[in-house]
Amino acid sequence: MIDAIGVFDSGVGGLTVVSALRRRLPGESILYLGDTARLPYGSKSPDTVTRYTRRNIEFLTGRGVKAVVVACNTASALALPNLDMHELPTWGVIEPGAIKAAQVSRGRVGVIATEATVRSDAYPRALRALRPDLEIVSQACPLFVPLVEEGWHDDPITEEVARRYLRPLLEAGVDTLVLGCTHYPLLVPVLQRVAGPDVTLVDSAEAVAEMVAAGLADRHLEATEAATHHFCVTDSGETFQRIARRILQDPGVGLEWVEVV
Amino acid sequence: MIDAIGVFDSGVGGLTVVSALRRRLPGESILYLGDTARLPYGSKSPDTVTRYTRRNIEFLTGRGVKAVVVACNTASALALPNLDMHELPTWGVIEPGAIKAAQVSRGRVGVIATEATVRSDAYPRALRALRPDLEIVSQACPLFVPLVEEGWHDDPITEEVARRYLRPLLEAGVDTLVLGCTHYPLLVPVLQRVAGPDVTLVDSAEAVAEMVAAGLADRHLEATEAATHHFCVTDSGETFQRIARRILQDPGVGLEWVEVV
Repeated sequence: MIDAIGVFDSGVGGLTVVSALRRRLPGESILYLGDTARLPYGSKSPDTVTRYTRRNIEFLTGRGVKAVVVACNTASALALPNLDMHELPTWGVIEPGAIKAAQVSRGRVGVIATEATVRSDAYPRALRALRPDLEIVSQACPLFVPLVEEGWHDDPITEEVARRYLRPLLEAGVDTLVLGCTHYPLLVPVLQRVAGPDVTLVDSAEAVAEMVAAGLADRHLEATEAATHHFCVTDSGETFQRIARRILQDPGVGLEWVEVV
Repeated sequence: MIDAIGVFDSGVGGLTVVSALRRRLPGESILYLGDTARLPYGSKSPDTVTRYTRRNIEFLTGRGVKAVVVACNTASALALPNLDMHELPTWGVIEPGAIKAAQVSRGRVGVIATEATVRSDAYPRALRALRPDLEIVSQACPLFVPLVEEGWHDDPITEEVARRYLRPLLEAGVDTLVLGCTHYPLLVPVLQRVAGPDVTLVDSAEAVAEMVAAGLADRHLEATEAATHHFCVTDSGETFQRIARRILQDPGVGLEWVEVV
């Protein structure tokens, strides 16, 4: 797919970015790769996540994409700084999310993400580079992804889990909460209830789409062919299809199984 | 490790089997492989789990083990029937658990396991082969593994999750509950509270250890060297080490990182 934007995530979460890309850039083709055979990334080491990210990007470039979006916070945080990506325009999701949070925050930012993303310190680093005055509190939320995958995205148990994870952030008085994992936008109703109306939730999907739109225009890489959307997964999971339908609000999501090792 | 029993699991759960093996066969050496770079298996397809299982067994046989224990219910259920394993004595965890449940049940058995194990129908098949009169109700519990990995193995939230998962089984009047995932023995206090004192919990670890002991004796494969225990993981996770210490009650668990693709 020579004219397509390549997008990958460990699984289904990156589709929240695809959804934003489709709204912002309806004319662009997208080739999506969900590395469902090896998900999740959020509990794994930088070396392993870097190896997987490199393979995923090689798969996408092998299919001829014109640009790459790393629609996974863990891969963006752990792997992107280690990869030499001169060939193609490549965007991660950390920087756009940090920019947005730095714009809206009144001074105290909470970051919720996977264990690996929190340990990488990628968000606090990006936020402080933009606004050294910010106070930042981070919290790993390893159960959020499995709760979303179980379909309990709006459920009393999930709310109880969220209350426990968010307690230290709310006690610290955060006014802005960065959703540092592409699964978390599905938890917005629960998170907003727990955080209260005064806390602004920041999801990087829209910001990424803006950045990609500007980047393609700068490089004169806008689509020249009719838009098509193609989805690949490394494991033939039904879960992916079920959640993909919910995120994309598209009952006809077809999947190609591919091997990436 | 020519004299060792090779044991593998997707991660840390199989250590409950190692623990039972060490109690039953203190003289035997063990080489353990935790495929932590690709865990969990329980949400993945039979093809993918079979591919990973084959590679893991190849890794263990490459290190010269004398026998293999598949200490993962998902791999035992999905992959073992598809693998040709004539070279080495190999045991899975489904049959021993089913034998024990068939011995103790008064007629109604509940099976809790990963999504993939439940979908495989391996336990009901094994149970009915032993006792056609049994009524069997199965329930996938995808959140139990992440809850254990989060360290919330004895926690009000986990109890609430268990109450929801077990409700249909308890309403069906099961008298025996098969813990069809090697992580679940860590949840015994919570599960027994939710199920009540009249339900017998069946953990296959002890039964597997019995079967291995008998099998080694039959084949005159008992240890001839001093016992050593060696642990390999495919991802350098700290989580593994933390939970391993709890399961093995051994603060000095050392790990070797290995690549298995």
